[in-house]
Amino acid sequence: MSVMKKNSVKLREEERARLIWLLTTHKTLTATLLGEITLVEQLDGERLDQDLAEVRALVSHLPPPDLADTLEALPVDERHALWRLVEDGKRGKVLLEASENVWDDLIDEMSDRALLAILETVDIDDRIWLVQHLPRNLIGRLMATLPPAERARVRQVMRYAKNCVGALMEFEVITVRSEVTLAAVQRYLRRLGRMPENTDKLFVIGRDNRLVGELGLQTILLNAAGKRVSDVMDADPVMFSPEDDAEKVARTFERDNLVSAAVVDSNGMLMGRLTIDEIVNVVYEETDNDMRQMGGLSTEEDVFAPVTKAVRTRWVWLATNLCTAFIASRVIDGFEHTISQLVALASLMPIVAGIGGNTGNQTITMIVRALALQNIQPGNITFLILREMGVALINGLVWGGIMGGVTWWLYDDAALGGVMTLAMVLNLLMAALMGVLIPMIMTRLGRDPAVGSSVMITAITDTGGFFIFLGLATLFLL
Amino acid sequence: MSVMKKNSVKLREEERARLIWLLTTHKTLTATLLGEITLVEQLDGERLDQDLAEVRALVSHLPPPDLADTLEALPVDERHALWRLVEDGKRGKVLLEASENVWDDLIDEMSDRALLAILETVDIDDRIWLVQHLPRNLIGRLMATLPPAERARVRQVMRYAKNCVGALMEFEVITVRSEVTLAAVQRYLRRLGRMPENTDKLFVIGRDNRLVGELGLQTILLNAAGKRVSDVMDADPVMFSPEDDAEKVARTFERDNLVSAAVVDSNGMLMGRLTIDEIVNVVYEETDNDMRQMGGLSTEEDVFAPVTKAVRTRWVWLATNLCTAFIASRVIDGFEHTISQLVALASLMPIVAGIGGNTGNQTITMIVRALALQNIQPGNITFLILREMGVALINGLVWGGIMGGVTWWLYDDAALGGVMTLAMVLNLLMAALMGVLIPMIMTRLGRDPAVGSSVMITAITDTGGFFIFLGLATLFLL
Repeated sequence: MSVMKKNSVKLREEERARLIWLLTTHKTLTATLLGEITLVEQLDGERLDQDLAEVRALVSHLPPPDLADTLEALPVDERHALWRLVEDGKRGKVLLEASENVWDDLIDEMSDRALLAILETVDIDDRIWLVQHLPRNLIGRLMATLPPAERARVRQVMRYAKNCVGALMEFEVITVRSEVTLAAVQRYLRRLGRMPENTDKLFVIGRDNRLVGELGLQTILLNAAGKRVSDVMDADPVMFSPEDDAEKVARTFERDNLVSAAVVDSNGMLMGRLTIDEIVNVVYEETDNDMRQMGGLSTEEDVFAPVTKAVRTRWVWLATNLCTAFIASRVIDGFEHTISQLVALASLMPIVAGIGGNTGNQTITMIVRALALQNIQPGNITFLILREMGVALINGLVWGGIMGGVTWWLYDDAALGGVMTLAMVLNLLMAALMGVLIPMIMTRLGRDPAVGSSVMITAITDTGGFFIFLGLATLFLL
Repeated sequence: MSVMKKNSVKLREEERARLIWLLTTHKTLTATLLGEITLVEQLDGERLDQDLAEVRALVSHLPPPDLADTLEALPVDERHALWRLVEDGKRGKVLLEASENVWDDLIDEMSDRALLAILETVDIDDRIWLVQHLPRNLIGRLMATLPPAERARVRQVMRYAKNCVGALMEFEVITVRSEVTLAAVQRYLRRLGRMPENTDKLFVIGRDNRLVGELGLQTILLNAAGKRVSDVMDADPVMFSPEDDAEKVARTFERDNLVSAAVVDSNGMLMGRLTIDEIVNVVYEETDNDMRQMGGLSTEEDVFAPVTKAVRTRWVWLATNLCTAFIASRVIDGFEHTISQLVALASLMPIVAGIGGNTGNQTITMIVRALALQNIQPGNITFLILREMGVALINGLVWGGIMGGVTWWLYDDAALGGVMTLAMVLNLLMAALMGVLIPMIMTRLGRDPAVGSSVMITAITDTGGFFIFLGLATLFLL
């Protein structure tokens, strides 16, 4: 066994990094590949030839999943340049492994004919998946390339929302009958010659394609060849409906340590299967989306999207933020008279607002996560509100007390210190209350609690903080 | 096939929800279970008896993973009450499936003897895992319950950091020799009678326990029984070292659609294996931790932790936030003279700070995610900085321009409007620059870029925003 083999994961990691480094730091390399300059125009032709040869060697050595990851880590021009070097036979697999954010860039410059040619190189299940997800205006032409049975399946799958089991399931399954022996199953498998990826079990069906059980590959291997399928199969397997929510299903996969599971329709007929690799993608995407959405970031923007796209996808939250900041500004403006009498208030008010924003964001992050992990049930809400308010009260008294003392000392004004402490306690309590209520109410309204929750809580704690602090100051200090 | 079976996932979900609802809304039920009140004291004894019977039935019907999830969704008292009802034979499995946040609560009230009894009920691999992770003061006694060979293994595993492959791997593997036939492998497997969970392949070893290849269960089933292992095995499998970082390994599992993989030492000797169920946990935890850490939340706090624990785990970030807010406040204080001359500045300055914080958080979220997904390589940093600054410049000109116009109109002061626009452009540029640089520098320093990054960027955009806006106002408006 050579060192090369032993380190294959590390070697591939190094090759990906090298490829990215070559393409991003050697601008002439990318330009040459894109045909913007020809080799003849180059001053340092020999050096460029070497680099080109190395890039080509790397591209042909790296397997499709690694090429997909490399494409995701490149700016648009370099992405195009690399894509041109990927051989036709690999392109389908690369597309399958790449995220949708990258597709537009890759498909952009390909002709429909070239795209159709790529589809021919992948499995039927993968082809169905690609046809569903590729740009809409191509679907018609792409559908025509599929055999009639598969065309019907694409139509069927396209009915389901993107985050449903139906949109993620695979059609290629191996089925057996319950009355045959394990020896017969083994003969059948050898005749088939291959199994779909991540096959850890076969599906046992009765009349009408109805699922009656599952037969693990382990079970086949561990039992005597003479036994019947019905004697050793799992007759009560976990199964899903095509309408099930993918994120919930992911938790069941985790909970039950599943590698694959059957998808059945409302009559118990086997439609297809779900596999762990799709589930892992769901988990990655789900948490990624939650993080982005809390910060007011589009789920569609990738880190290398061009400036114009980033501006387009981010403007909504920026505008929202500007509106809420404007409201906060108007609240302060209402207390102009108070501030003009005691300018110190202007320096102190951001502390009250800031500490509220911090606490509110801690609470809301925790609640959004707990909702996602399905840890919050109707019975718990009162407990959660009381808990967060309790934490806020203690923190308010401790840190508000300290800041009140500091204020007293700095401005030599005990009443100002008292107002500071009281305002901090009140704003922290409000932050805690809203931090629990906002995601709860959004869930009740059927909306995703992660979307923009951070922007919302900050708006409330800012406006509220300014109002509480300046209001108290007006009452007690003037 | 009954309806009951068909809906097993849904049925279990309903049962979990029912159990949580019963325990959290019927306070006397929990109190009775905890022995705080006896049945005799109850007024409505019959009703309580019914509820108790239902809770008992649910607990005995739900499998361990569901019980673990239910425990996580309960406040402390209810958690204790439920735990008392879990029968001894199930407790080990429940502990294994529950997250570490819950353990303290459960183990708290158990005697060492009871804990040892639980350990006896689980597999040796699970026992090793539990012994490693249970509270330190018990380790010595728990170790004594293990056979000498396993004790050595625990010591070996405990050397590795918590986020390394070494700490996650399992020791129970099935190995075969390369020179035997597939028929011999099948005979061997039947004699073994069982395989460890998530076994999708056997490991082929040579002399000295050296890994020479992998033999998929699929390969055994698809090939003729007379073939030799060496003819059909995968001789260049993906393998990991015990020192490898778990999050990176998770990406390799995703990239290569692995279900299990070998862990080998530096000499290529087989040490154990990693399975997809551990990897799925790693993915969930990783993204969960990232989200919490960005918001300045401890990774150890669960949503039902008591108030005192929440106060303890959150105070560091609150104190940090208070310090940064205090610095921002001192910056404003330095411009007290300017504000007293033009009180409108006090109402406008939070807009400049707020919009910077929003943009900074968008940028930093995107960069932290891209770093986690390994999409950022040294060659790209300049591109990213320029891209984010470009987005910030456009947004600054557009939204800063609008706000400048609004300010002009509100206060009838063109110069004030101009200062507003300029301050917004500059603060957005700074937010973008720091949003890229902070996570990059933290990564370079070997720290987790997610930790408190949101708190840090907000501090910079607040302080910077106030300084830029009030500084420009002092220069141009007085």
